Amino acid sequence: MKPLRIGLIGYGFMGRTHSNAYIQVNNFFDLEYRPVLQAVCARDAEKAKSFAAKWGYQSIETDWRRLVERDDIDLIDIAAPNNVHAEIAIAAAKAGKMILCEKPLALNGPEAEKMVAAVTKAKVPNMVWYNYRRVPAVTLAKQLIDEGKLGRIFHYRAKFLQDWTISADLPQGGAGLWRLDVKVAGSGVTGDLLAHCIDTAMWLNGGIDSVTATTETFIKQRKHTLTGKVEKVGIDDASLFLARFSNGSLATFESTRYARGHKALYTFEINGEHASIFWDLHDLHRLQYFDHRDQGAVRGWRSLHITDSEHPYMKNWWVPGLQIGYAETFVHQVVDFIQGLSKGKMAGPTFKDGLATDYVTDAVLKSAKTGRWEKVKKAR
Amino acid sequence: MKPLRIGLIGYGFMGRTHSNAYIQVNNFFDLEYRPVLQAVCARDAEKAKSFAAKWGYQSIETDWRRLVERDDIDLIDIAAPNNVHAEIAIAAAKAGKMILCEKPLALNGPEAEKMVAAVTKAKVPNMVWYNYRRVPAVTLAKQLIDEGKLGRIFHYRAKFLQDWTISADLPQGGAGLWRLDVKVAGSGVTGDLLAHCIDTAMWLNGGIDSVTATTETFIKQRKHTLTGKVEKVGIDDASLFLARFSNGSLATFESTRYARGHKALYTFEINGEHASIFWDLHDLHRLQYFDHRDQGAVRGWRSLHITDSEHPYMKNWWVPGLQIGYAETFVHQVVDFIQGLSKGKMAGPTFKDGLATDYVTDAVLKSAKTGRWEKVKKAR
Amino acid sequence: MKPLRIGLIGYGFMGRTHSNAYIQVNNFFDLEYRPVLQAVCARDAEKAKSFAAKWGYQSIETDWRRLVERDDIDLIDIAAPNNVHAEIAIAAAKAGKMILCEKPLALNGPEAEKMVAAVTKAKVPNMVWYNYRRVPAVTLAKQLIDEGKLGRIFHYRAKFLQDWTISADLPQGGAGLWRLDVKVAGSGVTGDLLAHCIDTAMWLNGGIDSVTATTETFIKQRKHTLTGKVEKVGIDDASLFLARFSNGSLATFESTRYARGHKALYTFEINGEHASIFWDLHDLHRLQYFDHRDQGAVRGWRSLHITDSEHPYMKNWWVPGLQIGYAETFVHQVVDFIQGLSKGKMAGPTFKDGLATDYVTDAVLKSAKTGRWEKVKKAR
Amino acid sequence: MKPLRIGLIGYGFMGRTHSNAYIQVNNFFDLEYRPVLQAVCARDAEKAKSFAAKWGYQSIETDWRRLVERDDIDLIDIAAPNNVHAEIAIAAAKAGKMILCEKPLALNGPEAEKMVAAVTKAKVPNMVWYNYRRVPAVTLAKQLIDEGKLGRIFHYRAKFLQDWTISADLPQGGAGLWRLDVKVAGSGVTGDLLAHCIDTAMWLNGGIDSVTATTETFIKQRKHTLTGKVEKVGIDDASLFLARFSNGSLATFESTRYARGHKALYTFEINGEHASIFWDLHDLHRLQYFDHRDQGAVRGWRSLHITDSEHPYMKNWWVPGLQIGYAETFVHQVVDFIQGLSKGKMAGPTFKDGLATDYVTDAVLKSAKTGRWEKVKKAR
Repeated sequence: MKPLRIGLIGYGFMGRTHSNAYIQVNNFFDLEYRPVLQAVCARDAEKAKSFAAKWGYQSIETDWRRLVERDDIDLIDIAAPNNVHAEIAIAAAKAGKMILCEKPLALNGPEAEKMVAAVTKAKVPNMVWYNYRRVPAVTLAKQLIDEGKLGRIFHYRAKFLQDWTISADLPQGGAGLWRLDVKVAGSGVTGDLLAHCIDTAMWLNGGIDSVTATTETFIKQRKHTLTGKVEKVGIDDASLFLARFSNGSLATFESTRYARGHKALYTFEINGEHASIFWDLHDLHRLQYFDHRDQGAVRGWRSLHITDSEHPYMKNWWVPGLQIGYAETFVHQVVDFIQGLSKGKMAGPTFKDGLATDYVTDAVLKSAKTGRWEKVKKAR
Repeated sequence: MKPLRIGLIGYGFMGRTHSNAYIQVNNFFDLEYRPVLQAVCARDAEKAKSFAAKWGYQSIETDWRRLVERDDIDLIDIAAPNNVHAEIAIAAAKAGKMILCEKPLALNGPEAEKMVAAVTKAKVPNMVWYNYRRVPAVTLAKQLIDEGKLGRIFHYRAKFLQDWTISADLPQGGAGLWRLDVKVAGSGVTGDLLAHCIDTAMWLNGGIDSVTATTETFIKQRKHTLTGKVEKVGIDDASLFLARFSNGSLATFESTRYARGHKALYTFEINGEHASIFWDLHDLHRLQYFDHRDQGAVRGWRSLHITDSEHPYMKNWWVPGLQIGYAETFVHQVVDFIQGLSKGKMAGPTFKDGLATDYVTDAVLKSAKTGRWEKVKKAR
Repeated sequence: MKPLRIGLIGYGFMGRTHSNAYIQVNNFFDLEYRPVLQAVCARDAEKAKSFAAKWGYQSIETDWRRLVERDDIDLIDIAAPNNVHAEIAIAAAKAGKMILCEKPLALNGPEAEKMVAAVTKAKVPNMVWYNYRRVPAVTLAKQLIDEGKLGRIFHYRAKFLQDWTISADLPQGGAGLWRLDVKVAGSGVTGDLLAHCIDTAMWLNGGIDSVTATTETFIKQRKHTLTGKVEKVGIDDASLFLARFSNGSLATFESTRYARGHKALYTFEINGEHASIFWDLHDLHRLQYFDHRDQGAVRGWRSLHITDSEHPYMKNWWVPGLQIGYAETFVHQVVDFIQGLSKGKMAGPTFKDGLATDYVTDAVLKSAKTGRWEKVKKAR
Repeated sequence: MKPLRIGLIGYGFMGRTHSNAYIQVNNFFDLEYRPVLQAVCARDAEKAKSFAAKWGYQSIETDWRRLVERDDIDLIDIAAPNNVHAEIAIAAAKAGKMILCEKPLALNGPEAEKMVAAVTKAKVPNMVWYNYRRVPAVTLAKQLIDEGKLGRIFHYRAKFLQDWTISADLPQGGAGLWRLDVKVAGSGVTGDLLAHCIDTAMWLNGGIDSVTATTETFIKQRKHTLTGKVEKVGIDDASLFLARFSNGSLATFESTRYARGHKALYTFEINGEHASIFWDLHDLHRLQYFDHRDQGAVRGWRSLHITDSEHPYMKNWWVPGLQIGYAETFVHQVVDFIQGLSKGKMAGPTFKDGLATDYVTDAVLKSAKTGRWEKVKKAR
């Protein structure tokens, strides 16, 4: 196995999921490369050291520019807040590094375009961490659609519901709360949650032509952790849109952090001429499948328990009936990235795919202002 | 018990549900009035006779005008297609009859306004058969909201999914298929299915201010049963809209007859500050309830099996654990109508409530054409 | 239609379910006979009158012996407590009446043998009200098994869980509580709940050869309503047994009134070589079905929503998606009884079937005392 | 952190789950010890090398006796077939090693007694890998019971259903199939699956006094992989028993490998005076909880999604809504073992607990032969 020397930027929630994936991947999958935890970068040296000790990174950096320039790094993994993705990625591309970037790719389409241009010019392998494509149940959905099991698609509906920010006492900004600060996050649930729904949707159902949207900020002001002052909240707490796909199907999308009772309820349903599919992140190891071609009296929604060797990725884990969890989706993404390297054909979602999603979120935010249907720009 | 002499117009699906309700109601509920099956009216005398024999109607009519004028009829029940509701109801009101009218009230708001004017002028008791308000689980939802259990409402989402008309071979028009004929039905799923969702939503969550919508007709042409020719399909096969309620909550609504795997999947979910509710017509005897005030470690969605004596209407049926079905919702509507007569205070949904729903469907259909947010007219 | 003049004995819960069935049956099913509510019998004349008025019975009796002898009665319906079933049924048979008897058929096998002898000698149509065979989902299960869909059966498991008598303050005996009085009920949950499970099981899976059982009375003493004294409780609160069927399959059966959270949770599951089935009374309109012959990646438990015209009995009710409830199972039993009359071939469960179930409950109660496996006597 | 040098015996399914746990544990939990993958032992040197390379073991052995004697090993992990547990464990204890042993502890009680004696005499920390105690939902169940939330327990029911060996073509014996060879496995599902159910049950609900059981071998002969001949099958394919716990509660237990549709469906339900609990391995991240003290109209089974920081072990993983899988249960077991070392108080299940389970399976197998209730020997 060849080493794949990782330089990780960020030590938060995503720094942990990525690191765990690098550690587990070769124990379960036979691959040409083995990730090596070469360095982790954080502005705070103590935090970087502590993270490195816990996860086994061999060195630390406190300035991402130094990390990007190091000769002993093959791949830059960007797990830092949204507002620094572009700058880092462009520098990493220039330095000839492979790049794995957390989602959303950028704060908006124009910024993402520059990132795509940079990796295209540098010809470096690149990927965005839209990990939900690698839930085995979701990958199976993709296979079933590609096999034509559903036939013509009429409807797509997705939602991502949380109840995390209902309390008015929650501050905005700072470590752990930067997702509530519009300057750092770019938008609220549109970029954070809907972006996941959109990436999956376009993977499964093709491009989106146009959208009409509305957004809302239920709590208008919150104390800002960094300034200590009560400030206007700039992010959207909820974001809903109707969409028309290029294939003629109609869609509803919704995301919110004000849905009491839901912690991370990302669901999607697809209704085709012959069959339908439903998936739910709260039971990510199941896929609901309805096939109209079943004999009438025994036709019904099938609850597939995605733990068989016939299911995507699953023969590499345990035995039938024993489920995997959230963490393994990142392992699968590393598997596909490495297999892409071996084949010389990049696995998606690439930066270009990430740009396509940013174009949709741009159109959603624009429509929420204009009150009209907005065309979605196409990534070429 | 006093007699309540019924004159029923129509002998189809709804003629059967209403008749069954009149027959069962006094066996289970103690009421001041007993419905008497006085006459059924249908243009085809043979069909009227056959229906009367089966259900125990004492006489028949073949012209609804004659029925409306009969002295031995107290209440006209309109279970005929949508395009004749207005004319019959206005005549019945003039004749001083009480009126129970199938939903939607009329083909559109302006027509419904005339019906409201007629019953208001005649001061006759009136009601629209939006029966889903009387599913015990839905009535319980109303009680929980009225008690303040949910607190401020953030989100409402409803859908009504069917898969009945996916086949391109299905004709339009004529008996059993008039719902596909725009001249008779007025619209497609907007008036047939979404109207149910809208009536429930405004009952539970108050008025709707504005909507943005899209509709689609997937199968553009179908043979017409009456003309024998292939004709353009005028109804909407699918109808989706976003809405803003007067109370500040956001909503998605969707209905379609192209959702493979769903037969009559009317669902709604309401997310409040403290609690959330979910209901599903395919398991109408259950209500899902989440209460954030439960102790953290044992907080979760509760599946309420609505068969206890503490649940609305249920102490009059069987014992805990034994469910009722669809038919009983019509019995409950008759119960409430009769109790309204006794109290001298009409139970909803009245014609005025039906008009309010028609205003929303008008705005939906308009927005689907203009591509803009449309204000909803308020029924006064 | 020919009249079928009913004489009902008993006016409790079961008096109501049967009466409702007689009233509804001809509105939904085309049959040769129409039940006529000729007379209801109760020892208390006021209660008999009140029930007759509510349900439309044309006359009353206060002595069942008089009812049995009336010339204008075709069928005696026994909805009285268990300890009077035998005496009434034997007298009714001698009088040449058809008999519908509530379950369990008798207090024990020997008593039931006399009832079978009486109806056999008199050649009168007879049936036991084990209504759960007529839940459409259960009838479908029977059809699937008879078609060979399951192949060789390995396992059967059934349970009937309630939480009705956990309170130590609940008295025994008297109206509404006779099921807790061993002298009237014969046994506790064994005859009341397990008998249902056993009837269904033998219908679906054939005869039971032997059982090993245990029973328990958790609350040892309760006040007796009729004597006013605290008396020893003679019934079993819980009854569990293992069984071996004649077809080689193994089974677990359990019933209790001490299962907190369950109101009337009758469930059964059958595992065959090729397919499995699960059913649950709390969602009686669904059947869970797993077919191993489905393609591997999309193999899973199917949730069948038993509301289609292809499902047993359902084309006579509403439209797909709209469920029926508990009451309709009694309607179906009347349908099958009448169709049996027309065909001259009795529908089950006949008294002989009821006897077979009593033999199993006898063996269960015996094993609970001996601590050994007991053979089950076969009804011939 | 201090090193905890592991010597693993066995490289199969369990060798993998244990190794993964040793690798992940310090990344997620702060502990005094860090497991070091010192050596793996397998009779086949090539297989040992291959496993060592994949998982990062620093050395290999082909004779477990040499491993046990190595000075650089602190802990012997026995992941070899059941018939060698005792010999290895006794030798390891004599050598003063800590021992983690796969379940069941031994082939039977008498053998297990010797193992308990050996670790007691040597005073070495010891544990049995009954990992299901460490599913967070199961641990929460334990907490709720210990808090008294359920009150007096009336009923316990557990089953472990698989459909793995229905094919008559499946051979017995050899790698991957030793569980079908009675000489290696000791018994069939009784020791393999029921043992899990029994360990959990006694942890949650206390000791079992007596049992009555039945077992069956559906396929009587199978080709033996090692001899190449068709041989009699000595294991039990299914094992069912009724039990009485010391606390007065009644129980049903069932396990089989002939339940079509179930892959590893381990479920248990506990009914208490005030509350009930249900858990299911196929959705291991959920716990169903019913509390009768909830207000009547909104009382129902709660589906707890065990992903909150308030839930056992979960604050060390991801964020609310994101589930863990099967693998993490082994991590938790290592956490508790190490914390036990730090505290000087062994976490269960110890060898003594494993012996108690073996006493129950002994009684089950005996009762299946005698047809009588058998007392369960108590581990002292």
